[in-house]
Parts: sequence; structure tokens; C-alpha cells
Amino acid sequence: MNTAAMRVVQTVTEARDARRAIRGSVGLVPTMGYLHEGHLALVRRARRENDFVAVSIFVNPTQFGPNEDFAAYPRDMQRDLAMLESEGVGLVFTPGVEQMYPKGFDCAIEPGGITERLEGVVRPGHFRGVATIVAKLFHVIAPTRAYFGQKDAQQARVIQKMVADLDFDLDVVVVPTVREADGLAMSSRNVYLNPEERQAAVVLSKSLRLAEQRVNEGRRDAASIRGEMAGLIAREPLARIDYISIADAASLAELSEVRLPALVSLAVRIGKTRLIDNAVLSASQNGEGLPQVDQHDE
Amino acid sequence: MNTAAMRVVQTVTEARDARRAIRGSVGLVPTMGYLHEGHLALVRRARRENDFVAVSIFVNPTQFGPNEDFAAYPRDMQRDLAMLESEGVGLVFTPGVEQMYPKGFDCAIEPGGITERLEGVVRPGHFRGVATIVAKLFHVIAPTRAYFGQKDAQQARVIQKMVADLDFDLDVVVVPTVREADGLAMSSRNVYLNPEERQAAVVLSKSLRLAEQRVNEGRRDAASIRGEMAGLIAREPLARIDYISIADAASLAELSEVRLPALVSLAVRIGKTRLIDNAVLSASQNGEGLPQVDQHDE
Repeated sequence: MNTAAMRVVQTVTEARDARRAIRGSVGLVPTMGYLHEGHLALVRRARRENDFVAVSIFVNPTQFGPNEDFAAYPRDMQRDLAMLESEGVGLVFTPGVEQMYPKGFDCAIEPGGITERLEGVVRPGHFRGVATIVAKLFHVIAPTRAYFGQKDAQQARVIQKMVADLDFDLDVVVVPTVREADGLAMSSRNVYLNPEERQAAVVLSKSLRLAEQRVNEGRRDAASIRGEMAGLIAREPLARIDYISIADAASLAELSEVRLPALVSLAVRIGKTRLIDNAVLSASQNGEGLPQVDQHDE
Repeated sequence: MNTAAMRVVQTVTEARDARRAIRGSVGLVPTMGYLHEGHLALVRRARRENDFVAVSIFVNPTQFGPNEDFAAYPRDMQRDLAMLESEGVGLVFTPGVEQMYPKGFDCAIEPGGITERLEGVVRPGHFRGVATIVAKLFHVIAPTRAYFGQKDAQQARVIQKMVADLDFDLDVVVVPTVREADGLAMSSRNVYLNPEERQAAVVLSKSLRLAEQRVNEGRRDAASIRGEMAGLIAREPLARIDYISIADAASLAELSEVRLPALVSLAVRIGKTRLIDNAVLSASQNGEGLPQVDQHDE
């Protein structure tokens, strides 16, 4: 395990040079910063599984829509670096926008049909932006393994698909969602919530738990389960539903009859803040509760 | 220099394993097979500059349009392998279509605005297909350097742009066009030409030489130079012009006044066979003749 001082680099050239000096396996955790326990779960898993851990911090403009929160996205580089240093991270790559997208940049990765559902419908171009920046980070850092959170379930599937389709030589590791004590999935965007909204936001994980319960009772009619979830959320005045989905866990195709493993996912606006959450329902978990819903990882 | 027996592999897994066993620098020459002296110039350059040379042979269906010659594209694997073995190639990767595009494949690299000109206009989707397969080959073989012919000038620019924009960690080397004694650029498609067409086909390189001459005389009006080229080609009854272009050598944007370096390029149908050729006009070559037009490399 690396015990040398953490190195922080801003340019692709420095990052490549730092990478070349590393021996053994490298775990990469790509982040947009403003780190929380969810990110640290990724970092700790990467430390357990690799000789060296690299983290990137880059708020990627191309994955934000024109009406989204790119400018307002929370940032705290000093706190982030202190957290990563205390976790034993060896390299942090913190490029500026002009470093990743120099003048004349004009190339994109289109991850295909899997982006035409769920978040991809509401956020056109989002996954193209994600896939393109992640491919660039993979080329710069050349990781053995890359770590993504189950919290962004569709993002994790998009990256897995890109890695398979484009023959990237690395493993994608998806790490369970980390939650607050009341079930709220950790997210950098939770900082936007005022105290009433913070309380209201628990309705996302509650509705997932409800879906889990119904499937465990043997219910398979996806429309009626979605309906019950919507009813629960409707009783929360601060919440507005963007979508509720029960989909095939691999293709993300919407299901009318629940077949396991299924991905239950939703996007809900709490006041002005858009939150997402999800749970994988799998046959082996019947009656045991979902690790994604109840587990407090790390 | 590698003197061991040449290894031929068909699967991504075998190719990756073979790559991991290689020490030192690796030059990759991606081809669609049916090799000629143009390809061998790439292989010889790769041998000079690297410890090990890998060649891929794959007729990539996604870079052919629906009305193009994918099925008819000439193939001769046994002859190709014999040629590569005698050139000291260490590894040949000859995947089948289902190996590169398994069921469910659904991802593409969009190389951007540079594809909206010249060949990209006539062959929509062509460069997306090229960029995607080349990225896959780069991920499987992880070359130090990759070799492309100047003959496919726009393809070389697209790959250079993709490598820069997506931060691939390799050098793209563009090798001058190899020509027959009468000036015809070598191409696997020349095999389609009957004897009369073969003779007519020399009009492409002749028109490039004419453009070079006019620029060397100090002429800068691109429209009138294109007009003279078109006039020369019109006198060849078997030839039909697809396009004639005088463009900025980097952006491929069409020029009205010639500024150097410029790329003069054209696509002409000789009978049913579509041929392309080009020459780079650069300030330093004034009065010396174009290496791309007259040089017989290797």
C-alpha cells in the first residue's frame, strides 16, 4: 500500500508522467469533487483492491444541460484533498476545463441505446458527456480498475457498456450506494436542501423500500407498484416526480411484468433540487432486504 | 528487432495476451488486408521505429455504406500473411466481424466537424466507423505508435484528431503515399480496374501534379485551379468527378485563396470504381515537386 505523500497534478502531461512512475495495479475513482462518504466508499474499495489509488476531481461541463447546475455545482478542493490524503490516495488529477477541452476539441463517444431511457431522456447529451470524459480519464490514467457508485445506476451501466464495446482493458467496479441514517442516498447535491427539504427527501428511499416489499410479497405488476410508489411520493408536498421506473437491470428496458434482476429507479425534485436513487431487486435477495436500500457501506 | 515466428490470432483475448508478453515499443499497422506496397511501406516504417510490429487485418463493415463494396472488397489472407511474415511482423490480429461487433454492440466514436467535408459528405457514417474500429484496435493492441497512409488523408487527420481529443497515449505516424511508376496511388481497389480503366486512372495523379505546378507558378485562386483540374479530368471519357478540393491542410476547410500548407484532394469514379488521391502543398516544397506525387517510398 502506498504511504508516500499524495501528489496533486493539474495537466494531462503531469498525470501521464506520474502514471508511468507507478508500479503494480492502479484503481481510479473519477469524481466531480465535493466528496462525501459515498466517494470515500469508492476510494476505500479501490485501496483494498489495488496497489495504488488515483482520484480525479473534475466538474465536467459537457455532462450538464444548459438549464442545469454546472456553475452552482458545489466545490471545495481544499477539503476534498485533505479527505483523500487521509485515505491514502497516491495521485489526484484536478484538471481545469481548458485542459480537458482545449480550443478545437470536437469528438464524442456515443454510448448507444442504453442512454435513451431514464436520465438520458430528461438530460439529453448527459451520457455522451459522461462517456467522453471518462474515456479521456481512462486514457490518461490507464487504470487497472475503475470505481463507480450504484447511486448513479445508469451511469455505471453506460460505462460498463462502453468499456465492453470499445475493448478498454480495465475492470469496472460498481460499489453499493452509501446512505444517511434515515435512508437518503449520499449526494453532493444534498447540500442544496434546506432542513424541510432534507426531511422530505427521505421519500425517495422510502418508495424504493415499498417497491422491494411489494416484490418480496410476490407482486409482479410493475404499473401498480409504480403507482403505489407515486402515491407515497404524492403525499410529500415538497416532492415532484420526474420519473419512476422498473426496468430490466441490464438493458434498462421498462418492464410491465417484473422479472428479476430489475432496477427500480426514480428522479424526484425536492424544491429546486433534483435527486435520483435506485435499488436492484434480485431473486437472491427476496425477503432479505436490499443492500442498496439499507446497507451503510464502509 | 523481432526474429521469432509471426503469431496470428483471431480473438481479442488472444491479442491482449500476446500484447502483454511483448517488451519494448510496439508499432501497429491497422489494415483491411489485400496488402500492397503502400501497406508494406507502413510496416517497414513501423519496423524501423519500434521493437515489435503488430498488423491488424479486418474488413470493417461499419465504415462501408449500404451501397458500397463491403461484400466485394478484395480479400487474400494467405498471401497477406506470407507478405507480413517476410517483413518481420511479430503479431497479426485477424478478428471476425462477430469478434469486433458481438451481439448488443452499440457504441460509437463521433470524430466531430472534420468528418463533415470531402469523403464524409459522400460517405455518411464512414469516419464514425473508422474512428470506432481504430479506437477498439488501439485498446486491444496498446501500440506505442500507429501507422496510417497519407493516401487516405482525411482518415489520417480524423485519427490524429481523435487521438488528441480523447488523450490516447500513442503517436500517429502518417506515411507518404506509394505510387505505381505512372503515378497511380496504390490501393486495394485498383484490382477492380480493367486495362483501359487502369490507364485512365492515372488522370488523378496527373491532375494533382497540375495543381502543384500552378501553385508553384504563384497562382492562388483555388477556384480556377480546381477548374483546370476538372478540365483535365473531363478529357478522360472513363472518369467522372465526385469532388475536387483545395482545403486547409489541418482543418480541411475549403479555401478560396490558396494558403499553404494546403491539401489538394479528389475522388473520381473510373468506370464503377471510386478512387481517391491527394497531395499536400507546403511552402517548403515550392519548386521541388511533391513527395506525395512523385516519391516512390520504400
